Amino acid sequence: MRQLLLGLSMGLGIVITQFSMAQSFRLVDQSELLYLHLDSGLVVVELNGIYAPNTVARIKALAGAGFYNGKMFYRVIDGFVAQGGANDEAPDPNYPPLPMEAKRMVAPTDAITLVPSPDLFAAFTGFKHGFAVGLDADKKRSWLLHCPGSLGMSRANEPDSATTDFYIVIGQAPRYLDGIMTVFGRVIWGMDKVQQIIRADVTGSGIIAADKPQTKIRWAAVGAALPKTQQLALMVEETQGKLFEEKLIDRLERPQAFFYEKPPRVLDVCQIPLRVKLAN
Amino acid sequence: MRQLLLGLSMGLGIVITQFSMAQSFRLVDQSELLYLHLDSGLVVVELNGIYAPNTVARIKALAGAGFYNGKMFYRVIDGFVAQGGANDEAPDPNYPPLPMEAKRMVAPTDAITLVPSPDLFAAFTGFKHGFAVGLDADKKRSWLLHCPGSLGMSRANEPDSATTDFYIVIGQAPRYLDGIMTVFGRVIWGMDKVQQIIRADVTGSGIIAADKPQTKIRWAAVGAALPKTQQLALMVEETQGKLFEEKLIDRLERPQAFFYEKPPRVLDVCQIPLRVKLAN
Repeated sequence: MRQLLLGLSMGLGIVITQFSMAQSFRLVDQSELLYLHLDSGLVVVELNGIYAPNTVARIKALAGAGFYNGKMFYRVIDGFVAQGGANDEAPDPNYPPLPMEAKRMVAPTDAITLVPSPDLFAAFTGFKHGFAVGLDADKKRSWLLHCPGSLGMSRANEPDSATTDFYIVIGQAPRYLDGIMTVFGRVIWGMDKVQQIIRADVTGSGIIAADKPQTKIRWAAVGAALPKTQQLALMVEETQGKLFEEKLIDRLERPQAFFYEKPPRVLDVCQIPLRVKLAN
Repeated sequence: MRQLLLGLSMGLGIVITQFSMAQSFRLVDQSELLYLHLDSGLVVVELNGIYAPNTVARIKALAGAGFYNGKMFYRVIDGFVAQGGANDEAPDPNYPPLPMEAKRMVAPTDAITLVPSPDLFAAFTGFKHGFAVGLDADKKRSWLLHCPGSLGMSRANEPDSATTDFYIVIGQAPRYLDGIMTVFGRVIWGMDKVQQIIRADVTGSGIIAADKPQTKIRWAAVGAALPKTQQLALMVEETQGKLFEEKLIDRLERPQAFFYEKPPRVLDVCQIPLRVKLAN
């Protein structure tokens, strides 16, 4: 028994097995990284200028201008989102409302690794360079998904109303928001720090009361604007190619002895962990 | 614009709308509550002796004997689970392996509020007194689901091998574990404290290295064993009845103006927030 408990099969042995599979990695360019230094620690976001070019340009401009420095996460609902930015300040005329960038046309040359599973919200799901995406092959449209760690732009009721504030998904994927919000990035480092963002009182509306503590963004910056010594050389798991396809099949088939009954052959695109590491 | 930002439609206005709907609540008996006082703060778990009677009896015995006091969360994977307990200590002969309690027979009198949506892992999903459940109506079996905040028993490869250690789901629902693990409770208070449990290094296996800090369970106790002054009178949203059914329909139909395009008529059973409040 003791041996069993110490061995691979200890507790939930699954993840250990999964993480021992081979992976390929790619280094993310510093110009595509947004560093958010929160009260709780450092968070690094990979931006996606392919799916959300105008929004990513805006985010880079805001970070470059120091806009987010000192701003708060003012609406934080455990299991849902942490929303930060200017809150109820008067809108800044420098940052007019952005067009919605929810869905983009895909070209025949667009490579998306499809998840071999049905999905209830999209005709297909898959990954494009580490980002979870939906795909409507008939309409040739693809969009970034709301998975844990996804960043999207807050907006009013009108689609083209986002300006400066954003949210980070901190709970079960709110997939019902897919396609009607501009998703523009994903947390690749410091998700534990995101999970430490101070929540609103669960008995309230989600807005943190003015007299209660809020988590501050001490500073935000694009990686390329930081001194080399402050940059993290982050390698993210490559989701194109044979190694990742094998990982998906492994998760679908669950050959490990731990699965004494095999689960349904279903993969939740938001429940496939992607590895990240520091280059040496 | 400023008014819009301050009004109901500010940011993601959805949750505010949802939370303004009427709800009914039930007071949870202190004998069905497990208090876990972590380094990060107080967490309260509602136990489910209907689905997992032997396991809940074991958990109550362990808590009553002070077994968990001083134990650590030693395997903590962001986005997956926080696992705590005895870790690699020699098995305690007082606590022999438990039978798997994954699926139970349902009787014709069992009331389950069905979620009006397809699901990929179960023929039906629903709620039974606040717990998310799966249902196979043909085989008359029901089981507790792995949603964020669910507690399950760690085990080795053999189904009947759980003894003392448990995990809390802290990320996207690992539904592939449904039916092959004993789920026995759900966090109803302090999920923000659970999210502050110290994670393992993301580049490792999930086990926290011996020389790194771990989050401790300072003490664990069943509510009924605590002095009245330490008990929390927790009211949980009642998932049987018309009010909750109306909430499900509202989430399915998304009548709010915020949804300028309506999402697919799909509800993820693990993405339906349930309210909790303190009785006065």
